[in-house]
Amino acid sequence: MPAIEELIGELTRLPGIGRKTATRLTYFLLKQPADAVHRLAQALVAVCDRVSPCSTCGNLGETDPCTICGDPRRDGTMICVVEEASDVGAIERSGEYRGLYHVLGGHLSPLDGIGPDELRIEALRARLSNGSAVREVILATNPSMEGEVTATYVRGVLEGRGVRVTRIALGLPVGGDLEYADGVTIAQALAARREVVG
Amino acid sequence: MPAIEELIGELTRLPGIGRKTATRLTYFLLKQPADAVHRLAQALVAVCDRVSPCSTCGNLGETDPCTICGDPRRDGTMICVVEEASDVGAIERSGEYRGLYHVLGGHLSPLDGIGPDELRIEALRARLSNGSAVREVILATNPSMEGEVTATYVRGVLEGRGVRVTRIALGLPVGGDLEYADGVTIAQALAARREVVG
Repeated sequence: MPAIEELIGELTRLPGIGRKTATRLTYFLLKQPADAVHRLAQALVAVCDRVSPCSTCGNLGETDPCTICGDPRRDGTMICVVEEASDVGAIERSGEYRGLYHVLGGHLSPLDGIGPDELRIEALRARLSNGSAVREVILATNPSMEGEVTATYVRGVLEGRGVRVTRIALGLPVGGDLEYADGVTIAQALAARREVVG
Repeated sequence: MPAIEELIGELTRLPGIGRKTATRLTYFLLKQPADAVHRLAQALVAVCDRVSPCSTCGNLGETDPCTICGDPRRDGTMICVVEEASDVGAIERSGEYRGLYHVLGGHLSPLDGIGPDELRIEALRARLSNGSAVREVILATNPSMEGEVTATYVRGVLEGRGVRVTRIALGLPVGGDLEYADGVTIAQALAARREVVG
């Protein structure tokens, strides 16, 4: 196949990139200096050769344990449970959390054949075994139907292990507009209302 | 720099891809089998190593002359002048044109320092020199301000050379809706109206 068609075809496999965008990107790349394109190709190869999941928490990184699990300054009494490795980055960017993570690798979705055994739930249980320092598990799965079901399931698994299990708060996003918020979010925000102090 | 950050950074350089999309693409690629990512990297390298402009028409391809210039079945009496190599693909897909092409490599844009010498206008003039078979030059630069200026300039350059110079028609796009068409397009479509025959 001609090289141009080949690249357009490969780019079309990426999520959110249709044929028009792939064509535009290809012709953009053809106008770039060769070393810029080679740099992108090398970055692709590097990410796929050097990045792998941490055997402890499942986060993606270039070391095992990952930089978070291996950092002695992190608070080892808290584990934040997320669906995907990309969620770790989102929470880290908030700068508010200093504990450890546990990446499930997705959410429960029986229709897609994803049950508890397909997620890293057993590994989470193992991290809370006798002698662990963990005192709190924060369930930070997505605020979607599947995320809620997954959070509920994980809470059930952790019951009776002597750890506090919490769920990340649902409510109005900061900077959002009440007028444009959906009803379910508003209902959650009302149910989780708190006393104004001071 | 960590490989993940590096790839996100490289992807951000692409047009229309911001940090969020780049992050999403990176984590998508991390979930793909290694050979799929290597295939994309190879396609990038191939496009940049194997594709070059045709020395006759400026179209991008893996041979010189390109597959269109080298095809004896193409009509050598017509040259369609376009701004970019990607426009050749767009016209080829219409399946309506059997002549040759000439890629200018952009449009006149004095503010960006792009004058006639930066475009392949001299090469077009050379193709029309004594003994050429060309009878018609179709100006198919974009229907934008810059494309119109460029078309007008090229028409001036070709004047008195005994070739018919035409401009691709401007009007309502097929499948479009008069209600949503802009005023300039409607004005062009009215000005270019034709007798209904039959």
